Parts: sequence; C-alpha cells; structure tokens
Amino acid sequence: MTDKSLTGINKLIHEPARLKIMAQLYVIESADFLFLMRQTGLTFGNLSAHLSKLETAGYIEVEKEFVGRKPHTMLHLTDKGRDAFRKYREDMKQIFDDLPA
Amino acid sequence: MTDKSLTGINKLIHEPARLKIMAQLYVIESADFLFLMRQTGLTFGNLSAHLSKLETAGYIEVEKEFVGRKPHTMLHLTDKGRDAFRKYREDMKQIFDDLPA
Repeated sequence: MTDKSLTGINKLIHEPARLKIMAQLYVIESADFLFLMRQTGLTFGNLSAHLSKLETAGYIEVEKEFVGRKPHTMLHLTDKGRDAFRKYREDMKQIFDDLPA
Repeated sequence: MTDKSLTGINKLIHEPARLKIMAQLYVIESADFLFLMRQTGLTFGNLSAHLSKLETAGYIEVEKEFVGRKPHTMLHLTDKGRDAFRKYREDMKQIFDDLPA
C-alpha cells in the first residue's frame, strides 16, 4: 500500500507533473533536465523534487556529466520505471475502456 | 488554477477515488450511496467526503428520499460534471495517445 491507492492506481505516477515526466521519458529514452523543464512547465525546484521521488522509487536514473565545463544532467527510465508506467497505463485504460464512448 | 494543475489535468477528478466515483456515475445515470461504497471500496466517511467535494464543485447532485421509512441517497452527475469528466478523459487520452504502443 505504499504507492498504491485502494483503487490499484499507482499514485506515484498518477500525480500530474510526474505523469508528464514519466510519459516524456517513456518516449525519448533519455532527456536532459532543461528539456524536461520546458516540456513540463515545472520550475527548477519542483522538477527536482519530483525527479527525486521517482529516483527514490527506482523509476528513473540520473546521470550527471560534464559537457566541457558545464554540468549536464541526463535522465532516463529504468526497467522498473518502464514496467510501472506500462502497468499504470493499463490500469487507466481499463477505467476508460469500461465506459461507453 | 483552482482545480487544474499546470498540466491542465483536472485534479478534482484525477484523484483515484473520485475518478472511480465519476466513472461509475458517468455510466449508470444514477446510483445510491451503498452501491457506490461497494463499487469503490471506500468507507462511509471517505465516500461522503469525496461526494461532498464533487457536489461543491457542481459535478454531482445528491437527492435524499425515503423508501418507506428508510432514508435513501441517490447520486447522479450534473451536466457540468458530465462535461468535466469528458474533458478529463480527453486530456488523459492525449497523454497516452502521444506514446508508442
């Protein structure tokens, strides 16, 4: 019951900002921090906080590297994160698929 | 920005328990309180609290009636609630439709 609600939906992924982050990373393999800021519209602090939660859960991996003298943060989904996102997508699809168009 | 996050997702509906309530009411026109308790797995208190929020937002209407001497609470979506749910479903679909299968 840590990151699942009684409805079975993974709340860690369900939070809108994190959902957008996960969806982005699901598609593009790896992204840098500034790209994610632009895509999600989150502030530096908010994005950092959400990424920390996802990293703690083992859903993303953060790599820090230097490009010349500039620090550069690259992020990508782990296999665990990819599986969790797929499962989440299935759970959400099921809620909507049960409905008439 | 009251019930919308910066991501455009309606947070009032996004909350998993309320999402299940809205999805149920979207399908079956009207439901009684005990039926919703069974379908959602929520406790009496939790379901009451979520319904209050949805009622305050104008998404559902609560009708109390007596069946014989028993009080009976019937719930249904308002037009506003129905529209909000459809919009929410579209927003969520868009997030997932942008992804490769």
